[in-house]
Amino acid sequence: MPARLRIFSLNCWGIRYLSKHCAQRYAMIGDLLSKEQHDVALLQEVWSEKDFLFLKKKLGGTHPYSHYFKSGFFGSGLAVFSKHRIHDAFLYKYTLNGYPYMAHHGDWFGGKAVGKILLNISGLEVHVFVTHLHAEYSREQDSYLPHRVVQAWELQNFIRHTSAGADVVILGGDLNMHPTDLGIRLLQSYTGLKDCFNETASFDGCEQGFTHITDNPFTHKQELIPFGGGIRIDYIFFKGSERARVSCESLATSKGPIPGQLFPYSDHETLSTELVLYSAEGGKGDSRKEKDCATEKLSELVNIVTEARTEVKVGLHYAERMRYTAARTGIMGLALLLLELAIAAVPCFALGTEQHFPKASFYLLGALCFTILLSTTLLYIFYGMEVKALQGAEDQMRLAVGSLQERLKDFQKGANENRSQKETDGHDDPATSEPDD
Amino acid sequence: MPARLRIFSLNCWGIRYLSKHCAQRYAMIGDLLSKEQHDVALLQEVWSEKDFLFLKKKLGGTHPYSHYFKSGFFGSGLAVFSKHRIHDAFLYKYTLNGYPYMAHHGDWFGGKAVGKILLNISGLEVHVFVTHLHAEYSREQDSYLPHRVVQAWELQNFIRHTSAGADVVILGGDLNMHPTDLGIRLLQSYTGLKDCFNETASFDGCEQGFTHITDNPFTHKQELIPFGGGIRIDYIFFKGSERARVSCESLATSKGPIPGQLFPYSDHETLSTELVLYSAEGGKGDSRKEKDCATEKLSELVNIVTEARTEVKVGLHYAERMRYTAARTGIMGLALLLLELAIAAVPCFALGTEQHFPKASFYLLGALCFTILLSTTLLYIFYGMEVKALQGAEDQMRLAVGSLQERLKDFQKGANENRSQKETDGHDDPATSEPDD
Repeated sequence: MPARLRIFSLNCWGIRYLSKHCAQRYAMIGDLLSKEQHDVALLQEVWSEKDFLFLKKKLGGTHPYSHYFKSGFFGSGLAVFSKHRIHDAFLYKYTLNGYPYMAHHGDWFGGKAVGKILLNISGLEVHVFVTHLHAEYSREQDSYLPHRVVQAWELQNFIRHTSAGADVVILGGDLNMHPTDLGIRLLQSYTGLKDCFNETASFDGCEQGFTHITDNPFTHKQELIPFGGGIRIDYIFFKGSERARVSCESLATSKGPIPGQLFPYSDHETLSTELVLYSAEGGKGDSRKEKDCATEKLSELVNIVTEARTEVKVGLHYAERMRYTAARTGIMGLALLLLELAIAAVPCFALGTEQHFPKASFYLLGALCFTILLSTTLLYIFYGMEVKALQGAEDQMRLAVGSLQERLKDFQKGANENRSQKETDGHDDPATSEPDD
Repeated sequence: MPARLRIFSLNCWGIRYLSKHCAQRYAMIGDLLSKEQHDVALLQEVWSEKDFLFLKKKLGGTHPYSHYFKSGFFGSGLAVFSKHRIHDAFLYKYTLNGYPYMAHHGDWFGGKAVGKILLNISGLEVHVFVTHLHAEYSREQDSYLPHRVVQAWELQNFIRHTSAGADVVILGGDLNMHPTDLGIRLLQSYTGLKDCFNETASFDGCEQGFTHITDNPFTHKQELIPFGGGIRIDYIFFKGSERARVSCESLATSKGPIPGQLFPYSDHETLSTELVLYSAEGGKGDSRKEKDCATEKLSELVNIVTEARTEVKVGLHYAERMRYTAARTGIMGLALLLLELAIAAVPCFALGTEQHFPKASFYLLGALCFTILLSTTLLYIFYGMEVKALQGAEDQMRLAVGSLQERLKDFQKGANENRSQKETDGHDDPATSEPDD
């Protein structure tokens, strides 16, 4: 019996206080996901952890497993919701991602990355990747092109190197590249990943599979008109293996305005696909893994990971305290600077009177305040990134402990069943019980 | 016939102008490597690319394949020399690595990472990892412990996720952890890697396998005395698979002073081991891979990677120019600041005379110079990191193109041979040629 796997992908455009109707759109996305019940939902640009937690609460009934990938200053923006247990998660942060002083583009602070989760579906090892590459702000003068090409290079490297043991590979996300762009060709020809849009048996959606269209009220129309009303920059890719054949049954995109709603889910269109997985052997992956790891080793591993998690928590506590200190010192520096400016303003207003306060001390104090403000800002950003990285590691460890404990339970249950089976066999038919070597 | 694999690992302590006898020690290391002819040499703390290039030139005859892993501001310091073709390289930079303002510790600027290379030895896929974790400056008050634990976590995650397709896994390097430390336990129990020191059939070296000892004239004796004259913080680990069984035949360390030399190779001891690889199937990995990729696809891939490399080179050129501009502007700011200070110094020396230069402009100019100096320094560091990252990607791409072209050549040769074989067969015995499906 082939397994069916429904995948959803959306760039949520979730910049709190800046993206239009952010909270309402998250509520709509939550409603859509809990109604449609895809197996896996891959979300990008979930910049705020609060929004992730909102979705997590809302989807608790339909998608009990989730993971939020933390990195950089704001986070990677990547989130995954799954109906199947997430056995493992791993994050690779791209080495290049724009420039910190291009703050209005903001990519650098986001810490863009590719996240990977590991699922086991009908005995098949399914590796699911989600990513979001650097935005393209101008196609003619794209100063970020080398950064995006390096990101595509690292993406294919990461997928290739980490999916050797996979039965099925799936990649979804906003790649910010057109279908014939260098990065897409690099990715596809190196990894052998197939584009759902090209492979699907049935397609329902925007013309040419566009995922960023002029019909969407949130997009800048002028930018998209030269491309015929839209561009295709969001993708779902897939690949089978010797152990599993995969085909794409259907692909659908939203088409801008949503019937019965005031606005669409995002400035990007949603993508959803149905994949069919034909197993060649069935259930082999899991049993092999369980053989590798005896109960004793597993529980030892749980203890070690728990110990590591404690250590990371200690570091997290320290980093949070340092971030707080940086913020407090920075605010004090700012207050002092404002106070000084206020003092300076008095003689300005009182024109004609002589200036009495000592100039040298004034400028020195001003320079000091400025230096404090600058350095604490840098420290705040740095500690913010440290906190995110430590939280990310701790999350991965928690997930790992959960998965290990599950395996331990299954393993013990299996052992108990085997034992009772053996005992039963022993009473019923002694001939069937084999001697130990 | 089992294959034999000799691995070497050394933390070279290669800080130009700071480490003692740096140039002479590199010459000694080069002599040792070209004499001993290990299959793979894993070096850490090769901080200067010039030193890597010196070794590369020196080892051109014995170790024609090499890779230098670039990351961070100074680089990762990781270098590999191999007698066997390096088919692929990949780098994972740890998300946490100390603090930029702890400049005297310098770890942050190094951008510590784990590098991976892929070798094919006697038909077995051998994945070799090299790494260097954050230093431990104080065992009692180790404020970097959470960072090192996260690094160990990421290291095991990277190895586990990227070595599923490996027949043999080898990890060497300076882990800066004692054998029973949390990070080592985490690494070993999660990945199943075995420590050469515990597994070797014959050991020749320092007591308890120490790799950082009081007998070495470059070490701080006081720090090591509490640990009984040395610590073991450098390791070589290995692991086989279903397709290959691996055993460790011998392990050796240097023992401080080298007979006939004035000083040792480094402040760490050298590690060298001989592993024996028993293949279960033999040569399967390669043929399967070749089947996957037809000639046409391969040459297309070569073109795409070459195109990407060009794009990265454009970015590199731009980043180098920006780094140069930052340096030039910074030097101008510094010159202006010094000039101002010189002007300011005149009234100081001429005590009693009245100060005539306008104070406000003076301080404003000073603050401007300072701001320029600070921001250009930050920019210089940032562009330095960008250059390193782009160079790293370009190196990987060059390596990939080389390996792809090699495969293409083999494939074409194989195809030609098959064709001529078929033709010969066709003439000699038509019955053996099978019809196509």
